[in-house]
Amino acid sequence: MNRRDVLIGGSAAIVAAMLSPTALSDTGARHKTVALVFDDYETLDLHGPIEMLGHMRNSQILLVGNQSVVRSYQGPRVVTDRQLPDVIPCDLFLIPGGLGTRTLVDDSELVDWLVRQCAVSKKVFSVCTGSALLAKTALLNQVSATTNKMAYNWVTSLNSQVVWQPTARWVDDGKYLTSSGVSAGIDAALHYIKQTQGEAEARRIEQLTEYQWNSDSRQDPYAISV
Amino acid sequence: MNRRDVLIGGSAAIVAAMLSPTALSDTGARHKTVALVFDDYETLDLHGPIEMLGHMRNSQILLVGNQSVVRSYQGPRVVTDRQLPDVIPCDLFLIPGGLGTRTLVDDSELVDWLVRQCAVSKKVFSVCTGSALLAKTALLNQVSATTNKMAYNWVTSLNSQVVWQPTARWVDDGKYLTSSGVSAGIDAALHYIKQTQGEAEARRIEQLTEYQWNSDSRQDPYAISV
Repeated sequence: MNRRDVLIGGSAAIVAAMLSPTALSDTGARHKTVALVFDDYETLDLHGPIEMLGHMRNSQILLVGNQSVVRSYQGPRVVTDRQLPDVIPCDLFLIPGGLGTRTLVDDSELVDWLVRQCAVSKKVFSVCTGSALLAKTALLNQVSATTNKMAYNWVTSLNSQVVWQPTARWVDDGKYLTSSGVSAGIDAALHYIKQTQGEAEARRIEQLTEYQWNSDSRQDPYAISV
Repeated sequence: MNRRDVLIGGSAAIVAAMLSPTALSDTGARHKTVALVFDDYETLDLHGPIEMLGHMRNSQILLVGNQSVVRSYQGPRVVTDRQLPDVIPCDLFLIPGGLGTRTLVDDSELVDWLVRQCAVSKKVFSVCTGSALLAKTALLNQVSATTNKMAYNWVTSLNSQVVWQPTARWVDDGKYLTSSGVSAGIDAALHYIKQTQGEAEARRIEQLTEYQWNSDSRQDPYAISV
């Protein structure tokens, strides 16, 4: 009985037993995502990828921030699992964007912490203007990357040594995966799942969430001319 | 200077001034969304619509639940602004789905509260298996509605007096707007914005979030045969 069958016809008890973390933890090593949150983060930058990543087998997702409770730009608040200056070794370090990045780029303690957190992360994934925070470090120098196309001029002005891409739904350049604005983070998250777990798993999650995946990073409806 | 110009080129101070709730509150009456949250709610069912609704002018979004902190199926936790049994008059009452609905349908106190909360809501919007909770009341009787296509058999079995639609990205039948699974909630939220604020506003938000809106409710890639 697969997850689809469970959702269609399974009883509540079967569903709970099959999908509980305990049941899932028997199937292999845990995949740990650590996501940075800050006041005025953009809701979908964070929760779009979390939706997709959270459906991987054995997925664990932790939020890290400067406070115990953080407010999104849209209003609702999330609770952090860990707080700075802790760094947390992980498979994937997710950095959302949002209005909050406009002031956070000038927070040298946060930028220093980013460098240390990236050092203990196997892969780093920014969404939207999350790449502005990365651009304040030297980590993206000579790396291909992209960002929200409507904030393109501002983000790219922060670091001319990054190989900025004006036409890309997302850019995967080795350790650094950077996506375009907001919704593009969902497409890039599915790309990451395909890369690490195989295409069947990415398609399973696409179907489960009734999503219509833009699976070609070169298809960028919001590309700009520079 | 519009929001797009601000995002492209505006300084942090201008952005903050233009987008702060104080600045926005001068432009008209507040639009209040109340969203139900419960343990094992599905992340994107909630945060997809919140992303879009939160970009409307003068948008206020409150979370309501049984506890002060609620955990999503994917793991991260949100903080509630109000708690049951309070009912909160609002423009839009959002009901996400998720694994948690499998047990919540048997919670008679919650179902009774739903009826009272719907009575003080101008419009009610369920995403995914959120419609299962509504189906446990008599509110959807003789109303056209839809749900997650992969949970279709279970949800529709709860109430045969609902006019269930197997092919619909979403169904808008007067007071009740019900969407298909997970991601479909984003498309339905933009439909609601178009309906209440005009198409230009829906398109502005679509562009701002670099989304690719499936704006035709009849285009349902996950339609099923029944």
